[in-house]
Amino acid sequence: MMSSKSRTVIIVAGGKGERMNSDVPKQFLLVHNQPILMHTIRLFHRFDSGCGIIVVLPESQQLYWQQLCADHHFDIPHAVVAGGASRFFSVKNGLKPAPDEGLIAIHDGVRPLASITTLERCFQSAAISNAAIPVTDAVESIRTLTPSGSMAVDRSLFKLVQTPQVFEASLLKKAYEQEYSILFTDDASVVEAYGHPVELVEGNPENIKVTTPGDLKIAEALIQQI
Amino acid sequence: MMSSKSRTVIIVAGGKGERMNSDVPKQFLLVHNQPILMHTIRLFHRFDSGCGIIVVLPESQQLYWQQLCADHHFDIPHAVVAGGASRFFSVKNGLKPAPDEGLIAIHDGVRPLASITTLERCFQSAAISNAAIPVTDAVESIRTLTPSGSMAVDRSLFKLVQTPQVFEASLLKKAYEQEYSILFTDDASVVEAYGHPVELVEGNPENIKVTTPGDLKIAEALIQQI
Repeated sequence: MMSSKSRTVIIVAGGKGERMNSDVPKQFLLVHNQPILMHTIRLFHRFDSGCGIIVVLPESQQLYWQQLCADHHFDIPHAVVAGGASRFFSVKNGLKPAPDEGLIAIHDGVRPLASITTLERCFQSAAISNAAIPVTDAVESIRTLTPSGSMAVDRSLFKLVQTPQVFEASLLKKAYEQEYSILFTDDASVVEAYGHPVELVEGNPENIKVTTPGDLKIAEALIQQI
Repeated sequence: MMSSKSRTVIIVAGGKGERMNSDVPKQFLLVHNQPILMHTIRLFHRFDSGCGIIVVLPESQQLYWQQLCADHHFDIPHAVVAGGASRFFSVKNGLKPAPDEGLIAIHDGVRPLASITTLERCFQSAAISNAAIPVTDAVESIRTLTPSGSMAVDRSLFKLVQTPQVFEASLLKKAYEQEYSILFTDDASVVEAYGHPVELVEGNPENIKVTTPGDLKIAEALIQQI
């Protein structure tokens, strides 16, 4: 059963290109001849053509993005707002034009491979719990670093966190009024610090953050062409 | 500088096919028209054509494997030994025909994407430390499950563990004489329980364990064809 609450997604694309050994910020790297960010936007539009889309981009990249949209005849409507000094402040900027009611998803611009069912699970759970994030099991063994070296931990106690992280709008906005803390590693941790628990739902393992040249090949292999 | 110690790899292929929703055990699924296990064997042969190769396979699959090798004209020499009731006992079986000196790597049959440099780092570190395993940083945020829900942890304190895990032969054999414990999640934990520390070296992010249909597409996209 789908929720009837309004939906908005804030897509955060702050990459400057360092990690890929490339001058092109990673959100603009091409997969099937289109910038990754376009695939990510299209994912939410396919999920719900009524979903409001707010893209957070460094100011210095906005003209280039306009040109890319023109060149690629990319016509999915979306607002563009300026990025901040870090992810926390970028999301804060993205929240300004977002509605005060309904559900707001925060999603990484370089995660074009979230599945529609992952999006459904996140929005449906958040419609009830007000805060839901997708997680996956670790396939690998996990070790934790210790002062004297490292030690194995029970991986069944750990989950890897993806996006979209979906929240009730007023809760999220109030949480983002808190003073910044280095403990804010993602939106869930901001909402938790505000005192609201976060529901975990199942993500999809393909929903990787595209950060290495190998990831780019993976995205090329897995992305659905529309 | 390469070590002059003899090298052996025990490739553990115990998959029965459940996780892939397939009747074909995952080590036999095709990538570039060849079973994954052949790609994994070829990786070690490319790394060092003098590397001894021991493949651990469920007894019920051994005739089928022979047939696959014939069909694919696969002629890289390797020994085949029977799998055990769990990974621990499979490795124990694989150790029986392995030499008592030199270095022994334990590797997952469904990790065909370890890089040659990962293999070099593991063997070179183990030549000095007697025990080395490849790890990567977590790209995702990490949460740990708690009695009341879950909480964010500092991901910089955690590492994801891959294979090959490489050890000095006599150390590994002695460690595997210990009684089985559910704390033995991988070979490193067996060696640590025996009292020997394990060195962490850098793995490569593409070195995934192929366990889902999406992983199979990833392997198809990333594997080097020789």
